Amino acid sequence: MRVAVVGATGAVGRRMVRILEERSFPVEELVLLASERSAGTRLRFRGEEHEVGVLSLEALRGVDVALSSCGSSVARTWIPQAAAAGTTCIDNSSAFRMEPDAALTIPEVNPESLEGRPRIVCVPNCTIITALLAVAPLHRAAGLRSLILSSYQSVSGAGQRGIVELAEQIEKLHGMEEELGSPDPSSLPVGEVFGKTIAYNVVAKIDRFDEQTGFTFEEIKMQREARKILSLPDLEIATTAVRVPVPVGHAVSIHATFDRPITVAEAREVLASAPGVQLRDDPARGVYPSPLEAAGIDDALVGRIRQVPGRDDALLLFSCADNLRKGAALNAVQIAEHLFA
Amino acid sequence: MRVAVVGATGAVGRRMVRILEERSFPVEELVLLASERSAGTRLRFRGEEHEVGVLSLEALRGVDVALSSCGSSVARTWIPQAAAAGTTCIDNSSAFRMEPDAALTIPEVNPESLEGRPRIVCVPNCTIITALLAVAPLHRAAGLRSLILSSYQSVSGAGQRGIVELAEQIEKLHGMEEELGSPDPSSLPVGEVFGKTIAYNVVAKIDRFDEQTGFTFEEIKMQREARKILSLPDLEIATTAVRVPVPVGHAVSIHATFDRPITVAEAREVLASAPGVQLRDDPARGVYPSPLEAAGIDDALVGRIRQVPGRDDALLLFSCADNLRKGAALNAVQIAEHLFA
Repeated sequence: MRVAVVGATGAVGRRMVRILEERSFPVEELVLLASERSAGTRLRFRGEEHEVGVLSLEALRGVDVALSSCGSSVARTWIPQAAAAGTTCIDNSSAFRMEPDAALTIPEVNPESLEGRPRIVCVPNCTIITALLAVAPLHRAAGLRSLILSSYQSVSGAGQRGIVELAEQIEKLHGMEEELGSPDPSSLPVGEVFGKTIAYNVVAKIDRFDEQTGFTFEEIKMQREARKILSLPDLEIATTAVRVPVPVGHAVSIHATFDRPITVAEAREVLASAPGVQLRDDPARGVYPSPLEAAGIDDALVGRIRQVPGRDDALLLFSCADNLRKGAALNAVQIAEHLFA
Repeated sequence: MRVAVVGATGAVGRRMVRILEERSFPVEELVLLASERSAGTRLRFRGEEHEVGVLSLEALRGVDVALSSCGSSVARTWIPQAAAAGTTCIDNSSAFRMEPDAALTIPEVNPESLEGRPRIVCVPNCTIITALLAVAPLHRAAGLRSLILSSYQSVSGAGQRGIVELAEQIEKLHGMEEELGSPDPSSLPVGEVFGKTIAYNVVAKIDRFDEQTGFTFEEIKMQREARKILSLPDLEIATTAVRVPVPVGHAVSIHATFDRPITVAEAREVLASAPGVQLRDDPARGVYPSPLEAAGIDDALVGRIRQVPGRDDALLLFSCADNLRKGAALNAVQIAEHLFA
């Protein structure tokens, strides 16, 4: 099988290459592609160095499956043509997620979306993957009625440059933690990626604002994608997306209501055997998940399961996952496995 | 007026002294008290140095009002006796908040709780202050029906040592931000204050767990105190309390439902004239609040006001406040002003 990785030099692209190797995906020929700026970089795969070429339709000729991690505008320039030419495109961007012909797939949650072998399969938003790995099994058990999500999203959601901006600002502010109790606004570093200071702060804006509703597009993506993935077009869902100064690992605080009563004990039982989930929920022993513990592993860590006081049909949960792996690269490889393995 | 500050050398205590001066509180004699360990420290007030003495009932004799920031167990050893002896005790601990005879007061929200001049007045939990400054004016306008809160709480909520633990861990982890994408668990620093690594992580546990319900006591405090402050004993309220690596400034993501429809425009109008609130909500101009911007100022910054999709009776908001000032020291001084000014 000829496999391409597009955007191979980025944080997600590098992980795609590593995960293809880790999981022994049946790659016969690996084609690594990126922008002109990054072409020429060499990446190791199965002990051999591969040179990254420049992305073009020509370079994708004869490729069976392309795993892509590039921006939406770049994705739009080549994915429809590559798909028409016979390449299965598994795309991390948001360009095609809501298109009726494109699948939007978390393999553990909605593998049925891959029936008919769609030529464009989209990896959902990393935060909604983190939330739905926990929520979907409960939905299957008790019928999801509404969802309220507040996120704690790591800076690597904005790519490598997000990590760099956080580290640069920490470099400036470390040592003056006490003075941040009454900071001089003009002394606070502001970068290009996050708009506000992200070091020692949280930033309740990811992607741009929809001026009509006041939601950010990150929040709107979470709403739309949850409805499509769960096949619940009328799901009541409210979302608040917040960036936190964490390098890798997203967390989501979840409030979910269901069609019937569901207890914490039942939810734990359901999630203990849910695919892609590790239950980390034992208050008596102080066990609960955090994003730094989810970084570098495949599963979402789910815990802090509580009954909403006074309601037998509502639960609170806290889910953490590696946004670069399960939220992106791993999910893409898993889709390829479902289609080709 | 004889005014005491108990716990004067801590992060909140020092701010109490500063705020008494800033606001020209009518102090005739200032008595600074702390534990034996911290006694002897000298603090400036109105240009003069004051030596901190050891806390005792003897030291409090003749004090009209004592502003206290010490732990609950210490508070229990002296507040009931001092109050019985005629001192008005304004307490930041959680020791007396739920006692029927004690007032639990945010002056902008429930000043009526100070009628009858209670001898013990409690400063509420800093996170519920941050939330209710935004929610209470909307409750008065439209009748609050339910509240779902997810918090982003700064490390100074655990006092000075919380800031120190964060800074020490940042010292260890800064420079290896990229490696945190796949951290070696044994290399992650774990301190005494937060239990898990707080640098470059978020920790969904504040205070200990109630094993029965799985809520932390921080979350339970938020529930109980919101009901008492708003005089809504049956309020449906769900809370998730999360520590984030921010030195000073708490944020809360709020989902609120009301007895009648309420629009974003109405909410903005209500909050634009609400006491203790600065509206920071203009998506078209990219205006929204963050905790680092709330640090060092008196008001809560409120923004990100959105209608819950599909519901005309529900809003989302994001509120930020300085947990050491409005969440503690300032709120205490404001209570003293209401009672004595």
